[in-house]
Amino acid sequence: MLGDFAEVIMWKNDLEFISVVLFRKMDSKDKRNASCGSSAIVHNPHLDALKDDILYHFSLGTGTHDLRAIFGDVKFVCVGGSPWRMKSFIEYIAAELELEPGTVVVTKQSVDATFQPKFEQVILGKTVVRSTDLDQSLAEELLQCSKELNQFQTVVGNTMCTLDFYEGQARLDGAFCSYTEKDKQDYLRKASEAGVCNIEMESSVFAAMCKLSGLRAAVVCVTLLDRLKGDQLSSCHEVLQNYQQRPQILVGYYIKRQLKTKAGVSQV
Amino acid sequence: MLGDFAEVIMWKNDLEFISVVLFRKMDSKDKRNASCGSSAIVHNPHLDALKDDILYHFSLGTGTHDLRAIFGDVKFVCVGGSPWRMKSFIEYIAAELELEPGTVVVTKQSVDATFQPKFEQVILGKTVVRSTDLDQSLAEELLQCSKELNQFQTVVGNTMCTLDFYEGQARLDGAFCSYTEKDKQDYLRKASEAGVCNIEMESSVFAAMCKLSGLRAAVVCVTLLDRLKGDQLSSCHEVLQNYQQRPQILVGYYIKRQLKTKAGVSQV
Repeated sequence: MLGDFAEVIMWKNDLEFISVVLFRKMDSKDKRNASCGSSAIVHNPHLDALKDDILYHFSLGTGTHDLRAIFGDVKFVCVGGSPWRMKSFIEYIAAELELEPGTVVVTKQSVDATFQPKFEQVILGKTVVRSTDLDQSLAEELLQCSKELNQFQTVVGNTMCTLDFYEGQARLDGAFCSYTEKDKQDYLRKASEAGVCNIEMESSVFAAMCKLSGLRAAVVCVTLLDRLKGDQLSSCHEVLQNYQQRPQILVGYYIKRQLKTKAGVSQV
Repeated sequence: MLGDFAEVIMWKNDLEFISVVLFRKMDSKDKRNASCGSSAIVHNPHLDALKDDILYHFSLGTGTHDLRAIFGDVKFVCVGGSPWRMKSFIEYIAAELELEPGTVVVTKQSVDATFQPKFEQVILGKTVVRSTDLDQSLAEELLQCSKELNQFQTVVGNTMCTLDFYEGQARLDGAFCSYTEKDKQDYLRKASEAGVCNIEMESSVFAAMCKLSGLRAAVVCVTLLDRLKGDQLSSCHEVLQNYQQRPQILVGYYIKRQLKTKAGVSQV
Protein backbone atom coordinates (compact mmCIF):
# COMPACT_ATOMS: atom_id res chain seq x y z
CA MET A 1 0.00 0.00 0.00
CA LEU A 2 2.91 2.38 0.60
CA GLY A 3 4.86 4.01 -2.19
CA ASP A 4 8.37 2.83 -2.90
CA PHE A 5 9.90 5.80 -1.12
CA ALA A 6 7.50 5.47 1.78
CA GLU A 7 8.90 6.28 5.18
CA VAL A 8 6.99 6.35 8.41
CA ILE A 9 7.65 9.18 10.82
CA MET A 10 5.81 9.47 14.08
CA TRP A 11 5.91 12.59 16.13
CA LYS A 12 4.09 13.65 19.19
CA ASN A 13 3.94 16.25 21.87
CA ASP A 14 1.72 14.82 24.55
CA LEU A 15 -0.72 12.00 25.06
CA GLU A 16 -3.58 12.93 22.85
CA PHE A 17 -5.00 10.65 20.25
CA ILE A 18 -3.11 9.68 17.15
CA SER A 19 -3.75 11.08 13.69
CA VAL A 20 -2.08 10.22 10.44
CA VAL A 21 -0.89 12.38 7.55
CA LEU A 22 0.18 10.82 4.26
CA PHE A 23 2.52 12.60 1.88
CA ARG A 24 2.19 11.58 -1.74
CA LYS A 25 4.81 11.79 -4.40
CA MET A 26 4.75 15.36 -5.64
CA ASP A 27 6.29 14.55 -9.00
CA SER A 28 3.46 14.32 -11.51
CA LYS A 29 5.54 12.02 -13.70
CA ASP A 30 5.28 9.35 -11.03
CA LYS A 31 2.53 6.88 -11.66
CA ARG A 32 0.12 5.96 -8.90
CA ASN A 33 0.76 2.28 -9.42
CA ALA A 34 4.53 2.50 -9.67
CA SER A 35 4.94 1.43 -6.08
CA CYS A 36 4.71 -2.34 -6.42
CA GLY A 37 8.38 -2.54 -5.52
CA SER A 38 7.63 -1.44 -1.92
CA SER A 39 9.84 -3.28 0.51
CA ALA A 40 7.27 -3.27 3.34
CA ILE A 41 6.62 -6.79 4.55
CA VAL A 42 3.13 -8.00 5.44
CA HIS A 43 3.37 -10.84 7.95
CA ASN A 44 -0.06 -12.35 7.59
CA PRO A 45 -0.76 -15.24 5.20
CA HIS A 46 -4.47 -15.10 6.07
CA LEU A 47 -4.93 -11.80 4.27
CA ASP A 48 -4.65 -13.54 0.88
CA ALA A 49 -7.73 -15.59 1.68
CA LEU A 50 -9.75 -12.55 2.75
CA LYS A 51 -12.30 -11.48 0.15
CA ASP A 52 -12.70 -7.95 1.47
CA ASP A 53 -10.37 -6.36 4.00
CA ILE A 54 -12.37 -3.74 5.88
CA LEU A 55 -10.28 -1.14 7.72
CA TYR A 56 -13.15 -0.27 10.01
CA HIS A 57 -11.51 2.59 11.92
CA PHE A 58 -10.57 4.40 8.71
CA SER A 59 -13.87 3.72 6.90
CA LEU A 60 -11.91 2.08 4.09
CA GLY A 61 -12.03 -1.39 2.57
CA THR A 62 -10.58 -3.35 -0.33
CA GLY A 63 -14.10 -4.08 -1.57
CA THR A 64 -15.17 -0.44 -1.58
CA HIS A 65 -11.89 1.36 -2.31
CA ASP A 66 -8.98 0.75 -4.69
CA LEU A 67 -6.35 1.20 -1.97
CA ARG A 68 -3.40 0.88 -4.35
CA ALA A 69 -4.82 3.61 -6.59
CA ILE A 70 -5.59 5.86 -3.62
CA PHE A 71 -2.43 5.28 -1.56
CA GLY A 72 0.08 3.74 -3.99
CA ASP A 73 1.95 7.02 -4.40
CA VAL A 74 2.33 7.74 -0.70
CA LYS A 75 5.89 8.72 0.10
CA PHE A 76 5.84 9.72 3.78
CA VAL A 77 3.46 8.60 6.50
CA CYS A 78 3.38 10.91 9.51
CA VAL A 79 1.56 9.80 12.65
CA GLY A 80 1.05 12.40 15.36
CA GLY A 81 -1.15 13.76 18.09
CA SER A 82 -4.55 15.39 17.86
CA PRO A 83 -6.31 16.18 14.57
CA TRP A 84 -5.76 19.94 15.05
CA ARG A 85 -2.03 19.37 15.30
CA MET A 86 -1.97 17.29 12.13
CA LYS A 87 -4.03 19.95 10.35
CA SER A 88 -1.56 22.56 11.54
CA PHE A 89 1.26 20.36 10.21
CA ILE A 90 -0.34 20.20 6.77
CA GLU A 91 -0.72 23.98 6.79
CA TYR A 92 2.83 24.36 8.06
CA ILE A 93 4.34 22.42 5.17
CA ALA A 94 3.38 25.42 3.04
CA ALA A 95 4.17 28.23 5.52
CA GLU A 96 7.18 27.97 7.84
CA LEU A 97 7.29 29.69 11.22
CA GLU A 98 10.15 31.20 13.24
CA LEU A 99 10.20 29.55 16.67
CA GLU A 100 12.00 29.95 19.97
CA PRO A 101 14.53 27.31 21.08
CA GLY A 102 13.69 24.12 23.14
CA THR A 103 14.51 20.40 23.23
CA VAL A 104 13.39 18.03 20.51
CA VAL A 105 14.15 14.34 21.08
CA VAL A 106 14.76 12.00 18.14
CA THR A 107 14.42 8.50 19.57
CA LYS A 108 17.44 6.20 19.54
CA GLN A 109 15.67 3.30 21.26
CA SER A 110 12.14 3.09 22.60
CA VAL A 111 12.52 1.44 26.01
CA ASP A 112 9.92 0.08 28.44
CA ALA A 113 9.48 1.05 32.11
CA THR A 114 12.42 -1.22 33.03
CA PHE A 115 14.56 0.58 30.40
CA GLN A 116 14.70 -2.41 28.04
CA PRO A 117 14.26 -1.86 24.27
CA LYS A 118 11.33 -4.24 23.96
CA PHE A 119 7.57 -4.30 23.42
CA GLU A 120 5.54 -7.03 25.07
CA GLN A 121 2.40 -8.26 23.37
CA VAL A 122 0.03 -10.99 24.49
CA ILE A 123 -0.89 -13.28 21.58
CA LEU A 124 -3.36 -16.12 22.21
CA GLY A 125 -2.74 -15.61 25.92
CA LYS A 126 1.07 -15.94 25.62
CA THR A 127 3.53 -13.07 26.04
CA VAL A 128 5.62 -12.34 22.95
CA VAL A 129 8.56 -9.90 23.09
CA ARG A 130 9.33 -7.72 20.08
CA SER A 131 12.30 -5.46 19.39
CA THR A 132 11.73 -1.70 19.36
CA ASP A 133 14.82 -0.80 17.32
CA LEU A 134 14.35 2.26 15.15
CA ASP A 135 16.26 3.25 12.01
CA GLN A 136 19.51 4.79 13.26
CA SER A 137 20.41 6.37 9.91
CA LEU A 138 17.03 8.13 9.76
CA ALA A 139 17.56 9.42 13.32
CA GLU A 140 20.98 10.75 12.30
CA GLU A 141 19.51 12.41 9.21
CA LEU A 142 16.88 14.12 11.37
CA LEU A 143 19.60 15.31 13.76
CA GLN A 144 21.54 16.66 10.78
CA CYS A 145 18.38 18.45 9.59
CA SER A 146 18.04 20.07 13.01
CA LYS A 147 21.61 21.36 12.74
CA GLU A 148 20.85 22.82 9.32
CA LEU A 149 17.63 24.39 10.63
CA ASN A 150 19.42 25.78 13.70
CA GLN A 151 16.15 26.84 15.34
CA PHE A 152 16.01 24.70 18.50
CA GLN A 153 18.05 22.14 20.38
CA THR A 154 17.68 18.56 19.19
CA VAL A 155 19.16 15.45 20.80
CA VAL A 156 19.18 11.75 19.90
CA GLY A 157 18.30 9.73 23.01
CA ASN A 158 16.15 6.96 24.42
CA THR A 159 12.41 7.42 24.82
CA MET A 160 10.67 5.59 27.63
CA CYS A 161 7.28 4.25 26.60
CA THR A 162 4.94 3.59 29.52
CA LEU A 163 1.55 1.93 29.91
CA ASP A 164 -0.02 4.84 31.74
CA PHE A 165 0.43 8.56 32.25
CA TYR A 166 0.44 8.82 36.05
CA GLU A 167 1.83 5.91 38.08
CA GLY A 168 3.59 4.50 35.01
CA GLN A 169 5.52 7.77 34.65
CA ALA A 170 6.16 8.20 38.39
CA ARG A 171 3.87 11.23 38.60
CA LEU A 172 2.78 12.47 42.02
CA ASP A 173 -0.35 14.24 40.74
CA GLY A 174 -2.60 11.38 39.64
CA ALA A 175 -5.66 9.98 41.39
CA PHE A 176 -3.48 7.16 42.76
CA CYS A 177 0.00 7.39 44.22
CA SER A 178 1.60 4.89 46.59
CA TYR A 179 5.24 6.08 46.44
CA THR A 180 7.16 9.07 47.77
CA GLU A 181 8.74 12.05 46.05
CA LYS A 182 12.12 10.41 46.73
CA ASP A 183 11.00 7.12 45.07
CA LYS A 184 9.97 9.17 42.06
CA GLN A 185 13.27 11.05 41.87
CA ASP A 186 15.27 7.82 42.27
CA TYR A 187 13.31 6.15 39.47
CA LEU A 188 13.60 9.09 37.08
CA ARG A 189 17.33 9.34 37.81
CA LYS A 190 17.76 5.65 36.97
CA ALA A 191 15.84 6.26 33.75
CA SER A 192 18.11 9.17 32.93
CA GLU A 193 21.20 7.02 33.61
CA ALA A 194 19.75 4.48 31.15
CA GLY A 195 19.79 7.21 28.49
CA VAL A 196 16.09 8.14 28.71
CA CYS A 197 15.52 11.72 27.48
CA ASN A 198 11.72 11.74 27.42
CA ILE A 199 8.64 9.70 28.32
CA GLU A 200 5.52 8.98 26.27
CA MET A 201 3.08 6.15 25.59
CA GLU A 202 3.03 5.09 21.93
CA SER A 203 6.57 4.78 20.58
CA SER A 204 7.21 1.12 21.47
CA VAL A 205 4.28 -0.39 19.55
CA PHE A 206 5.03 1.98 16.68
CA ALA A 207 8.73 1.00 16.63
CA ALA A 208 7.95 -2.72 16.98
CA MET A 209 5.41 -2.76 14.13
CA CYS A 210 7.63 -0.75 11.79
CA LYS A 211 10.62 -2.98 12.59
CA LEU A 212 8.60 -6.14 11.89
CA SER A 213 7.36 -4.61 8.62
CA GLY A 214 10.79 -3.55 7.42
CA LEU A 215 9.82 0.14 7.34
CA ARG A 216 12.37 2.90 8.03
CA ALA A 217 10.87 4.68 11.02
CA ALA A 218 11.69 7.51 13.40
CA VAL A 219 10.04 9.00 16.48
CA VAL A 220 10.34 12.76 17.04
CA CYS A 221 9.06 14.26 20.30
CA VAL A 222 9.35 17.57 22.13
CA THR A 223 9.79 17.71 25.89
CA LEU A 224 7.15 19.87 27.58
CA LEU A 225 8.56 19.96 31.11
CA ASP A 226 11.48 18.77 33.24
CA ARG A 227 10.00 15.86 35.18
CA LEU A 228 12.73 16.10 37.85
CA LYS A 229 11.31 19.52 38.69
CA GLY A 230 7.58 18.73 38.54
CA ASP A 231 4.68 16.82 37.03
CA GLN A 232 2.32 19.50 35.80
CA LEU A 233 2.65 21.68 32.74
CA SER A 234 3.50 25.13 34.04
CA SER A 235 4.41 26.90 30.78
CA CYS A 236 1.75 29.16 29.32
CA HIS A 237 -0.40 28.03 26.41
CA GLU A 238 1.56 30.09 23.87
CA VAL A 239 4.91 28.61 24.89
CA LEU A 240 3.47 25.07 24.80
CA GLN A 241 2.02 25.75 21.36
CA ASN A 242 5.46 26.85 20.22
CA TYR A 243 7.08 23.72 21.62
CA GLN A 244 4.52 21.51 19.94
CA GLN A 245 5.34 22.93 16.54
CA ARG A 246 9.00 21.96 16.76
CA PRO A 247 8.71 18.28 15.81
CA GLN A 248 6.63 19.24 12.77
CA ILE A 249 9.14 21.89 11.73
CA LEU A 250 11.90 19.29 11.87
CA VAL A 251 9.92 16.59 10.07
CA GLY A 252 8.67 19.14 7.52
CA TYR A 253 12.23 20.25 6.82
CA TYR A 254 13.34 16.61 6.39
CA ILE A 255 10.50 15.85 3.96
CA LYS A 256 11.21 18.91 1.83
CA ARG A 257 14.93 18.11 1.78
CA GLN A 258 14.21 14.53 0.70
CA LEU A 259 11.88 15.67 -2.08
CA LYS A 260 14.49 18.21 -3.26
CA THR A 261 17.18 15.51 -3.32
CA LYS A 262 14.97 13.10 -5.29
CA ALA A 263 14.03 15.88 -7.71
CA GLY A 264 17.74 16.70 -8.13
CA VAL A 265 18.53 13.06 -8.87
CA SER A 266 15.73 12.68 -11.42
CA GLN A 267 16.86 15.83 -13.27
CA VAL A 268 20.39 14.42 -13.77
CA MET B 1 -15.53 16.01 42.83
CA LEU B 2 -18.41 13.59 42.27
CA GLY B 3 -21.86 14.12 43.68
CA ASP B 4 -23.06 11.99 46.55
CA PHE B 5 -25.15 9.81 44.25
CA ALA B 6 -22.42 9.60 41.66
CA GLU B 7 -22.07 6.33 39.82
CA VAL B 8 -19.71 5.57 37.01
CA ILE B 9 -21.01 3.65 34.03
CA MET B 10 -18.84 2.85 31.07
CA TRP B 11 -20.25 1.59 27.85
CA LYS B 12 -18.76 0.97 24.52
CA ASN B 13 -19.37 -0.54 21.15
CA ASP B 14 -15.96 -0.78 19.53
CA LEU B 15 -12.46 0.51 19.98
CA GLU B 16 -12.78 4.16 19.30
CA PHE B 17 -11.62 6.83 21.68
CA ILE B 18 -13.24 7.44 25.00
CA SER B 19 -15.58 10.30 25.77
CA VAL B 20 -17.26 11.19 29.03
CA VAL B 21 -20.78 12.38 29.82
CA LEU B 22 -21.67 13.69 33.26
CA PHE B 23 -25.22 13.65 34.54
CA ARG B 24 -26.02 16.26 37.13
CA LYS B 25 -28.68 16.16 39.73
CA MET B 26 -31.83 17.26 38.01
CA ASP B 27 -33.53 18.40 41.18
CA SER B 28 -33.10 22.17 41.44
CA LYS B 29 -33.47 22.01 45.21
CA ASP B 30 -30.15 20.17 45.39
CA LYS B 31 -27.28 22.45 46.16
CA ARG B 32 -24.14 22.28 44.05
CA ASN B 33 -21.94 21.91 47.12
CA ALA B 34 -24.07 19.28 48.80
CA SER B 35 -21.76 16.49 47.68
CA CYS B 36 -19.08 16.63 50.36
CA GLY B 37 -20.31 13.30 51.62
CA SER B 38 -19.08 11.50 48.49
CA SER B 39 -17.61 8.12 49.34
CA ALA B 40 -15.07 8.14 46.49
CA ILE B 41 -11.58 7.58 47.82
CA VAL B 42 -8.60 9.50 46.47
CA HIS B 43 -5.44 7.46 47.00
CA ASN B 44 -2.81 10.16 46.63
CA PRO B 45 -1.45 12.09 49.62
CA HIS B 46 0.64 14.28 47.29
CA LEU B 47 -2.45 16.02 45.94
CA ASP B 48 -2.84 17.97 49.21
CA ALA B 49 0.54 19.60 48.66
CA LEU B 50 -0.26 20.57 45.07
CA LYS B 51 -1.01 24.28 44.70
CA ASP B 52 -2.84 23.92 41.38
CA ASP B 53 -3.98 20.60 39.94
CA ILE B 54 -4.07 21.00 36.17
CA LEU B 55 -6.15 18.39 34.34
CA TYR B 56 -4.35 19.04 31.09
CA HIS B 57 -6.37 16.72 28.84
CA PHE B 58 -9.65 18.30 29.94
CA SER B 59 -8.40 21.93 29.90
CA LEU B 60 -9.44 22.23 33.54
CA GLY B 61 -7.51 23.11 36.68
CA THR B 62 -8.10 23.82 40.36
CA GLY B 63 -6.43 27.23 39.93
CA THR B 64 -8.63 28.26 37.02
CA HIS B 65 -11.88 26.43 37.77
CA ASP B 66 -13.94 25.79 40.91
CA LEU B 67 -14.29 22.07 40.26
CA ARG B 68 -16.58 21.47 43.23
CA ALA B 69 -18.96 24.19 42.05
CA ILE B 70 -18.87 22.91 38.46
CA PHE B 71 -19.02 19.16 39.13
CA GLY B 72 -20.21 18.82 42.73
CA ASP B 73 -23.74 17.93 41.63
CA VAL B 74 -22.74 15.20 39.18
CA LYS B 75 -24.81 12.10 39.72
CA PHE B 76 -23.83 9.74 36.92
CA VAL B 77 -20.58 9.61 34.97
CA CYS B 78 -20.84 7.78 31.64
CA VAL B 79 -17.68 6.98 29.72
CA GLY B 80 -18.11 5.73 26.18
CA GLY B 81 -16.75 5.63 22.66
CA SER B 82 -16.43 8.38 20.10
CA PRO B 83 -17.71 11.94 20.66
CA TRP B 84 -20.54 11.45 18.13
CA ARG B 85 -21.81 8.48 20.11
CA MET B 86 -21.78 10.42 23.35
CA LYS B 87 -23.57 13.31 21.66
CA SER B 88 -26.14 10.85 20.38
CA PHE B 89 -26.50 9.51 23.93
CA ILE B 90 -27.20 13.00 25.29
CA GLU B 91 -29.81 13.49 22.57
CA TYR B 92 -31.21 10.04 23.25
CA ILE B 93 -31.84 10.73 26.91
CA ALA B 94 -34.60 13.07 25.71
CA ALA B 95 -35.90 11.01 22.77
CA GLU B 96 -36.10 7.21 22.99
CA LEU B 97 -35.86 4.99 19.93
CA GLU B 98 -37.41 1.64 19.08
CA LEU B 99 -34.63 -0.81 18.17
CA GLU B 100 -34.26 -4.33 16.83
CA PRO B 101 -33.01 -7.09 19.15
CA GLY B 102 -29.30 -8.11 19.67
CA THR B 103 -26.92 -8.99 22.49
CA VAL B 104 -25.86 -6.51 25.14
CA VAL B 105 -23.22 -7.70 27.62
CA VAL B 106 -23.14 -6.34 31.17
CA THR B 107 -19.70 -7.26 32.51
CA LYS B 108 -19.45 -9.64 35.45
CA GLN B 109 -15.65 -9.66 35.58
CA SER B 110 -13.18 -7.95 33.29
CA VAL B 111 -10.54 -10.60 32.56
CA ASP B 112 -7.15 -10.37 30.84
CA ALA B 113 -5.95 -12.43 27.86
CA THR B 114 -5.25 -15.37 30.18
CA PHE B 115 -8.83 -15.10 31.52
CA GLN B 116 -7.77 -13.81 34.95
CA PRO B 117 -9.73 -10.94 36.59
CA LYS B 118 -6.69 -8.69 36.97
CA PHE B 119 -5.12 -5.56 35.58
CA GLU B 120 -1.33 -5.32 35.50
CA GLN B 121 0.30 -1.93 35.85
CA VAL B 122 3.98 -1.07 35.89
CA ILE B 123 4.77 1.41 38.68
CA LEU B 124 8.35 2.64 39.08
CA GLY B 125 9.41 -0.27 36.86
CA LYS B 126 7.70 -2.92 39.01
CA THR B 127 4.58 -4.85 38.02
CA VAL B 128 1.59 -4.30 40.30
CA VAL B 129 -1.56 -6.42 39.96
CA ARG B 130 -4.96 -4.86 40.62
CA SER B 131 -8.38 -6.46 40.92
CA THR B 132 -10.92 -5.79 38.18
CA ASP B 133 -14.02 -6.65 40.21
CA LEU B 134 -17.09 -4.67 39.22
CA ASP B 135 -20.20 -3.94 41.26
CA GLN B 136 -22.34 -7.09 41.04
CA SER B 137 -25.50 -5.43 42.35
CA LEU B 138 -25.25 -2.69 39.71
CA ALA B 139 -24.80 -5.38 37.01
CA GLU B 140 -27.91 -7.15 38.31
CA GLU B 141 -29.87 -3.88 38.32
CA LEU B 142 -28.88 -3.27 34.71
CA LEU B 143 -29.95 -6.81 33.77
CA GLN B 144 -33.27 -6.17 35.51
CA CYS B 145 -33.64 -2.92 33.54
CA SER B 146 -33.09 -4.83 30.31
CA LYS B 147 -35.90 -7.22 31.27
CA GLU B 148 -38.20 -4.29 31.95
CA LEU B 149 -37.21 -2.66 28.65
CA ASN B 150 -37.68 -5.95 26.77
CA GLN B 151 -36.12 -4.55 23.56
CA PHE B 152 -33.01 -6.68 23.08
CA GLN B 153 -31.21 -9.64 24.63
CA THR B 154 -28.91 -8.78 27.56
CA VAL B 155 -26.57 -11.16 29.37
CA VAL B 156 -24.26 -10.82 32.36
CA GLY B 157 -20.88 -12.36 31.51
CA ASN B 158 -17.13 -11.89 31.51
CA THR B 159 -15.50 -9.34 29.24
CA MET B 160 -11.98 -10.04 28.00
CA CYS B 161 -9.84 -6.91 27.91
CA THR B 162 -6.87 -7.17 25.56
CA LEU B 163 -3.83 -5.00 24.86
CA ASP B 164 -4.40 -4.88 21.11
CA PHE B 165 -7.13 -5.31 18.56
CA TYR B 166 -5.57 -7.84 16.18
CA GLU B 167 -3.12 -10.42 17.58
CA GLY B 168 -4.34 -9.75 21.13
CA GLN B 169 -7.87 -10.74 20.06
CA ALA B 170 -6.76 -13.69 17.87
CA ARG B 171 -7.81 -11.93 14.67
CA LEU B 172 -6.63 -13.30 11.35
CA ASP B 173 -7.04 -10.01 9.46
CA GLY B 174 -4.33 -7.79 10.96
CA ALA B 175 -1.00 -6.76 9.45
CA PHE B 176 0.67 -9.49 11.54
CA CYS B 177 -0.48 -13.03 12.15
CA SER B 178 1.71 -15.96 13.16
CA TYR B 179 -0.99 -18.47 14.15
CA THR B 180 -3.51 -20.61 12.29
CA GLU B 181 -7.30 -20.46 12.04
CA LYS B 182 -7.37 -23.53 14.31
CA ASP B 183 -5.17 -21.80 16.94
CA LYS B 184 -7.60 -18.90 16.86
CA GLN B 185 -10.66 -21.10 17.25
CA ASP B 186 -9.03 -23.06 20.09
CA TYR B 187 -8.16 -19.84 21.93
CA LEU B 188 -11.60 -18.29 21.52
CA ARG B 189 -13.24 -21.52 22.65
CA LYS B 190 -11.09 -21.52 25.79
CA ALA B 191 -12.12 -17.91 26.37
CA SER B 192 -15.75 -18.88 25.98
CA GLU B 193 -15.31 -21.76 28.45
CA ALA B 194 -13.89 -19.22 30.91
CA GLY B 195 -17.17 -17.30 30.65
CA VAL B 196 -15.99 -14.63 28.20
CA CYS B 197 -18.93 -13.14 26.28
CA ASN B 198 -17.16 -10.27 24.53
CA ILE B 199 -13.75 -8.72 23.91
CA GLU B 200 -12.67 -5.09 24.14
CA MET B 201 -9.71 -2.99 25.30
CA GLU B 202 -10.60 -0.60 28.11
CA SER B 203 -12.70 -2.34 30.75
CA SER B 204 -9.86 -3.65 32.95
CA VAL B 205 -8.24 -0.29 33.72
CA PHE B 206 -11.71 1.21 34.17
CA ALA B 207 -12.76 -1.56 36.58
CA ALA B 208 -9.45 -1.45 38.49
CA MET B 209 -9.54 2.33 38.99
CA CYS B 210 -13.19 2.37 40.05
CA LYS B 211 -12.58 -0.54 42.46
CA LEU B 212 -9.59 1.25 44.02
CA SER B 213 -11.65 4.43 44.34
CA GLY B 214 -14.65 2.74 45.93
CA LEU B 215 -16.97 3.75 43.09
CA ARG B 216 -19.91 1.59 42.02
CA ALA B 217 -19.12 0.82 38.40
CA ALA B 218 -20.51 -1.19 35.51
CA VAL B 219 -19.41 -1.93 31.94
CA VAL B 220 -22.09 -2.28 29.25
CA CYS B 221 -21.06 -3.41 25.75
CA VAL B 222 -22.81 -4.63 22.64
CA THR B 223 -21.39 -7.45 20.54
CA LEU B 224 -20.95 -6.47 16.89
CA LEU B 225 -20.06 -9.86 15.44
CA ASP B 226 -19.58 -13.51 16.33
CA ARG B 227 -15.80 -13.91 16.44
CA LEU B 228 -16.04 -17.69 16.01
CA LYS B 229 -17.51 -16.98 12.56
CA GLY B 230 -15.21 -14.16 11.44
CA ASP B 231 -13.10 -11.13 12.24
CA GLN B 232 -14.52 -8.38 10.08
CA LEU B 233 -17.74 -6.45 10.57
CA SER B 234 -20.10 -7.72 7.91
CA SER B 235 -23.37 -6.10 9.06
CA CYS B 236 -24.43 -3.01 7.19
CA HIS B 237 -23.92 0.45 8.64
CA GLU B 238 -27.57 0.82 9.67
CA VAL B 239 -27.61 -2.44 11.61
CA LEU B 240 -24.32 -1.55 13.35
CA GLN B 241 -25.74 1.87 14.24
CA ASN B 242 -28.74 0.13 15.76
CA TYR B 243 -26.53 -2.21 17.78
CA GLN B 244 -24.44 0.68 19.04
CA GLN B 245 -27.47 2.42 20.46
CA ARG B 246 -28.42 -0.50 22.67
CA PRO B 247 -25.99 0.11 25.55
CA GLN B 248 -27.10 3.74 25.71
CA ILE B 249 -30.76 2.74 25.70
CA LEU B 250 -30.09 0.44 28.64
CA VAL B 251 -27.96 2.95 30.57
CA GLY B 252 -30.43 5.73 29.78
CA TYR B 253 -33.29 3.63 31.12
CA TYR B 254 -31.33 2.86 34.28
CA ILE B 255 -30.52 6.54 34.88
CA LYS B 256 -34.14 7.62 34.41
CA ARG B 257 -35.36 4.86 36.71
CA GLN B 258 -32.85 5.87 39.38
CA LEU B 259 -33.87 9.53 39.15
CA LYS B 260 -37.54 8.56 39.36
CA THR B 261 -36.87 6.42 42.45
CA LYS B 262 -34.93 9.21 44.17
CA ALA B 263 -37.66 11.73 43.27
CA GLY B 264 -40.25 9.32 44.72
CA VAL B 265 -38.26 9.01 47.95
CA SER B 266 -37.82 12.78 48.36
CA GLN B 267 -41.56 13.38 47.85
CA VAL B 268 -42.43 11.06 50.74
